[in-house]
Amino acid sequence: MSTTLGQVIKCKAAVAWEAGKPLVIEEVEVAPPQANEVRVKILFTALCHTDVYFWEAKGQTPLFPRIFGHEAGGVVESVGEGVTDLKPGDHVLPVFTGECGDCRHCRSEESNMCDLLRINTDRGVMINDGKSRFSINGKPIHHFVGTSTFSEYTVVHVGCLAKINPAAPLDKVCVLSCGISTGLGATLNVAKPKKGSSVAIFGLGAVGLAAAEGARIAGASRIIGVDLNPSRFEEAKKFGCNEFVNPKDHNKPVQEVIAEMTDGGVDRSVECTGSIQAMISAFECVHDGWGVAVLVGVPNKDDAFKTHPMNLLNERTLKGTFFGNYKPRTDIPGVVEQYLKKELELEKFITHAVPFSEINKAFDYMLKGESIRCIIRMGE
Amino acid sequence: MSTTLGQVIKCKAAVAWEAGKPLVIEEVEVAPPQANEVRVKILFTALCHTDVYFWEAKGQTPLFPRIFGHEAGGVVESVGEGVTDLKPGDHVLPVFTGECGDCRHCRSEESNMCDLLRINTDRGVMINDGKSRFSINGKPIHHFVGTSTFSEYTVVHVGCLAKINPAAPLDKVCVLSCGISTGLGATLNVAKPKKGSSVAIFGLGAVGLAAAEGARIAGASRIIGVDLNPSRFEEAKKFGCNEFVNPKDHNKPVQEVIAEMTDGGVDRSVECTGSIQAMISAFECVHDGWGVAVLVGVPNKDDAFKTHPMNLLNERTLKGTFFGNYKPRTDIPGVVEQYLKKELELEKFITHAVPFSEINKAFDYMLKGESIRCIIRMGE
Repeated sequence: MSTTLGQVIKCKAAVAWEAGKPLVIEEVEVAPPQANEVRVKILFTALCHTDVYFWEAKGQTPLFPRIFGHEAGGVVESVGEGVTDLKPGDHVLPVFTGECGDCRHCRSEESNMCDLLRINTDRGVMINDGKSRFSINGKPIHHFVGTSTFSEYTVVHVGCLAKINPAAPLDKVCVLSCGISTGLGATLNVAKPKKGSSVAIFGLGAVGLAAAEGARIAGASRIIGVDLNPSRFEEAKKFGCNEFVNPKDHNKPVQEVIAEMTDGGVDRSVECTGSIQAMISAFECVHDGWGVAVLVGVPNKDDAFKTHPMNLLNERTLKGTFFGNYKPRTDIPGVVEQYLKKELELEKFITHAVPFSEINKAFDYMLKGESIRCIIRMGE
Repeated sequence: MSTTLGQVIKCKAAVAWEAGKPLVIEEVEVAPPQANEVRVKILFTALCHTDVYFWEAKGQTPLFPRIFGHEAGGVVESVGEGVTDLKPGDHVLPVFTGECGDCRHCRSEESNMCDLLRINTDRGVMINDGKSRFSINGKPIHHFVGTSTFSEYTVVHVGCLAKINPAAPLDKVCVLSCGISTGLGATLNVAKPKKGSSVAIFGLGAVGLAAAEGARIAGASRIIGVDLNPSRFEEAKKFGCNEFVNPKDHNKPVQEVIAEMTDGGVDRSVECTGSIQAMISAFECVHDGWGVAVLVGVPNKDDAFKTHPMNLLNERTLKGTFFGNYKPRTDIPGVVEQYLKKELELEKFITHAVPFSEINKAFDYMLKGESIRCIIRMGE
């Protein structure tokens, strides 16, 4: 039994005191887990663009001080009342969106958008009592998307924890908590390209590269990367991309360029930029009769997706996805197994690693566009 | 062997000499079938809104004189060179779009949009030689969508003929050539509602009623009919509709009305009006997480489908369909079998019948909105 059971734990956390200002490593108090909650010792965390977006807090209602972080791997320290699925010592990946198991979405085979635990970026507290489990000298520090993994210990709702094979190295599989699973699942679970088919990937950041990796795993023979930044093309080859289109190189819409390259359009497309124009292009570049376009990137509030309805009537399909349609608790353990079986290659996503004390470097790498994923080693 | 084999047949046809003017029963010459063509004796034909649309020819390049008609049942009289799938005496349904069997679409399991024989409303001739098989005193009369079934004999490409069970009554199954299959397949093949699910049908004309019939066959428990004309609601009950919404009765968008009725949205929707606003409503009224909207109705040239991309990212699917995704030769014989097994009820679609000599009455019934389908008996 853990000696910390039922006790407040004092540990280090990287606190964001203000929007856009470097995180500060502080000693924080982490309260014990309440009903349906789990306290987790985080061993490795990674930085995702979503952390940076809410840390910059541009055009948002700011919620500070806050502990960011949502891609991570850890070990259960203790569990609250009613938690039967997990016990101390279990290896887990916290996930920013949950699976209560009881709501209509969780009971539906088709949805992973849990009514109870769906992502909420505006909430900085736990749903059990509307309060934070983090404090400094009694002053609460806000949570972020129910995970707050930039802390040596964190408290997470049991529905937001995937129990994984303890044989999996946490410094690798921690990246499956968010972006990589999002892109991978968009291709494997939603676009579902057939062996030998053609797939266009819009945006070659981490999510897009994971979507390309999904196309590679599915056996697509043509994987066309589309990006405005040609420096990404070389890296993308490792993820299966074997053709490239830079929309800036052409004086016609990129969907027309792709249609010409592919005798009428690709079989599948996956949009990972969030640009509304890329979304429209990704839809219009799929072949009539059977083409499927999948939208992953998050758009701006005022964007409108606009197309001629004949593009749909000619038997194209347009779908959106959230977290790659994976149910966090049900499905993510299986993705970890895909990695262990070497079907899925995670190492190539991990371009950087820093000790926890240098977490701000991870932000620099991402802001400069140098990293795909930077692992933060919590023990150092 | 037919005594007419290889001969020009003189028979009666209803000729449209001018846009919007009553058809005139004339004696026409029907040339023998050329390579890959079949001459068919039409026994029953029905009138579909598409015939009326091209007969009115508003805003179109007019193509007259022309023999309309594309929903029909008949018997093969003779076959041209290279036709091995059909022989004289076979019962067939002509279809306005074809299945060559060789192109990428025909080879794809997912598409029915044959490259060679896809519907072409602007072509008034056979593809073999670019000429018409119909004439009056040597002057050619144009074909319509490769079928021209308002004639006692017609010539059709073999790829546009579904060979059906001769036990099937042609005066009933003739309606499967177009609209009924389109609506039925939109639900059964594309929307695919589960047993016990909820389905909204936009537009309660023949196609929408067939879509409702598909939902009834699939075992949907809530079938919500949406129409601006409340007089259609009583009829729609026969097709499984058990709830109704008239958008005119509400001072908020119909998608919001439906979301409130169904705790967040229907599981599936099928749009059968062609109105762009109805298309948008049909998409936005499906539930997040799993909702699928299927577009069937043909829009105007300048319409734009417009929605906020978050509606997609919340795991909704938007698809279009053409002829209910049925491959004409491969799949329509199976739909005829569904009728013979009494799974599919065709009688309720057939509200009127007239002898061929009174074909213009069928136009009147449709223009007045009185008929769902009017059968035209060719022998009379």
